[in-house]
Amino acid sequence: MTFEDLTCRTAKWLDGSGPESTSVVSTRVRVARNLTGFPFAHRAKEEQLHQIMDTVVGSCKDGSSTSEMTFFDASSLSELQRELLVERHLISPALAEGRGPRGVLMASDESLSVMTNEEDHLRMQMVLSGFQSGEVWEGVEYLERSLSERLDYAFSDRWGYLTACPTNTGTGLRASILVHLPVLVLAQQMESVVRGVTQMGFTVRGLYGEGTEVSGNLFQVSNQLTLGCSELKTIESLEKVAKQFLECEQNAREALVRDARAQIEDKIWRAYSILSHARVLTSQEFMNFSSAVRFGIGLGVLPFKDVGVLNELMVQTRPAHLQCRLGRRIDPADRDQIRAEMVRNRMAGLGKV
Amino acid sequence: MTFEDLTCRTAKWLDGSGPESTSVVSTRVRVARNLTGFPFAHRAKEEQLHQIMDTVVGSCKDGSSTSEMTFFDASSLSELQRELLVERHLISPALAEGRGPRGVLMASDESLSVMTNEEDHLRMQMVLSGFQSGEVWEGVEYLERSLSERLDYAFSDRWGYLTACPTNTGTGLRASILVHLPVLVLAQQMESVVRGVTQMGFTVRGLYGEGTEVSGNLFQVSNQLTLGCSELKTIESLEKVAKQFLECEQNAREALVRDARAQIEDKIWRAYSILSHARVLTSQEFMNFSSAVRFGIGLGVLPFKDVGVLNELMVQTRPAHLQCRLGRRIDPADRDQIRAEMVRNRMAGLGKV
Repeated sequence: MTFEDLTCRTAKWLDGSGPESTSVVSTRVRVARNLTGFPFAHRAKEEQLHQIMDTVVGSCKDGSSTSEMTFFDASSLSELQRELLVERHLISPALAEGRGPRGVLMASDESLSVMTNEEDHLRMQMVLSGFQSGEVWEGVEYLERSLSERLDYAFSDRWGYLTACPTNTGTGLRASILVHLPVLVLAQQMESVVRGVTQMGFTVRGLYGEGTEVSGNLFQVSNQLTLGCSELKTIESLEKVAKQFLECEQNAREALVRDARAQIEDKIWRAYSILSHARVLTSQEFMNFSSAVRFGIGLGVLPFKDVGVLNELMVQTRPAHLQCRLGRRIDPADRDQIRAEMVRNRMAGLGKV
Repeated sequence: MTFEDLTCRTAKWLDGSGPESTSVVSTRVRVARNLTGFPFAHRAKEEQLHQIMDTVVGSCKDGSSTSEMTFFDASSLSELQRELLVERHLISPALAEGRGPRGVLMASDESLSVMTNEEDHLRMQMVLSGFQSGEVWEGVEYLERSLSERLDYAFSDRWGYLTACPTNTGTGLRASILVHLPVLVLAQQMESVVRGVTQMGFTVRGLYGEGTEVSGNLFQVSNQLTLGCSELKTIESLEKVAKQFLECEQNAREALVRDARAQIEDKIWRAYSILSHARVLTSQEFMNFSSAVRFGIGLGVLPFKDVGVLNELMVQTRPAHLQCRLGRRIDPADRDQIRAEMVRNRMAGLGKV
């Protein structure tokens, strides 16, 4: 797999399959691990970082389940290419903007990936479409175990897995869903629901994780605790929290539709029609209108059911994707036109299904 | 012709035919006349008003060119029905809201009509689609002359035709165009153009004439002078003024398209798509979006050329029309839904032509 293959393809987790996929875009689990015998990445010398990276990449290449994974060395990628990997959720902004030996290994469908020399020596991730917490956990656990045959993870009997930042120490596990909650936002109920899940040890963030803005009513809900809470308990809690969000959203939707069905349908149809006809479309507009369309699919208002198209466009129309596809930097005004054309062409086919 | 026939039909002047009809919705001429031997309408007693009305209606019924005209007695119409006649530009708000014997005679295609006992005893009107100043003047002149065979118009050698308000005395002529000037508005050039035509003795008003608001960038441009200016001179001046407006608008359009083609096309397509998909649509929204669509037809951006549909909907979707069609008062929120459905159904057919 070459880097160019990435730009014209869509990751499997965006295909809109899986349970509850109208509301839950994806479920993601990552575990942080570090190798014994090396300092944490932020204290390691360049030579040590090279050794770590080579060890991690080598252990993957040697494994039967991981030998097909492709490694992208961040320092040999352009800034635009690194931004594209961030947009695909394959690397973090920290890895993209960092320096020195670092990179990412990924399966060709992008469901499984391993960052190396980000904050920790290894960050293994699995992501699937819809709500599939059990499946992603099992996938990551399998990967973690198979690599452990060739790698020595830094582990303390008292603290569990050791990590560069103490907030990950213990399980090193972060489990999250990307969930669409338009009516909780509209009804201004997010604050109280968030307060509830915070008490359950979960946190709510924007589309690209910590410090990113909420866009298109999409929220990343993830566990905070990694100490004193087993992996299975964490996954169970995520399931509870997800159910709670979906129930609250569903109740809010029912109330809204009861009170203002025509206005809601109007908003949905206008959003759909603008996505299908606009000639200029900003990223933010795409996120807002596609939120209304996603809601419309959930309500059964629109003549199609495919949220996969919205998921794909959400990634494919982001700035680095548009620019990598055309192979050059493009100013934002021109991007808005290219984005509009892409969205229009994809949306046009939908109503006819 | 019954009143019910009116509600489900469209007047001929809305069919979008005629020269310059993309920008000039219609050309209208009316002349004011009063009968000798009667006081002006506002000073006449009820009995005299009856006599005036009977004389006017009788003279039309007797004429070969006017015998097919239908008379609607305002006092036998409901408030909603009178509002509908205002929306069709067949009577003035003054006639609708007035009291006593008064009404309107009209040809079945509504191009020719005669109000009686509005401000003057007679107001004869001809209106045609597009820019047809010569034709409407000839039509009104022919009507005025044929009625003069049976009616004695109040006339002074010094002042010309006498009218209830001195602003009409002389020719009693008001010649106007309803013209669409979206880019002069956008470019904030209306004020300077209006200043120019004011110096030529013309005035610029909203869609429903004096005291009405501008809506959908449609302006009624009409002569002010009726004294010391012949009818033909007035019609000639209207032609000059119309050309000036159309030229200024055309220049502004060319500059705009040169500078911001994509943004303009985007605005047009979004307007078109909303009209084609909205589930709730206010009158004002319809006027704004149809202004953008009309502009798009002029630019050749949209896949159809029929401004007639926009003209028809402009009248058919107004409150009294919607309510008369359904035969009852409907509250504004419900009207917005019925309007959206009507517009959607008509717009849906357009792109496929």
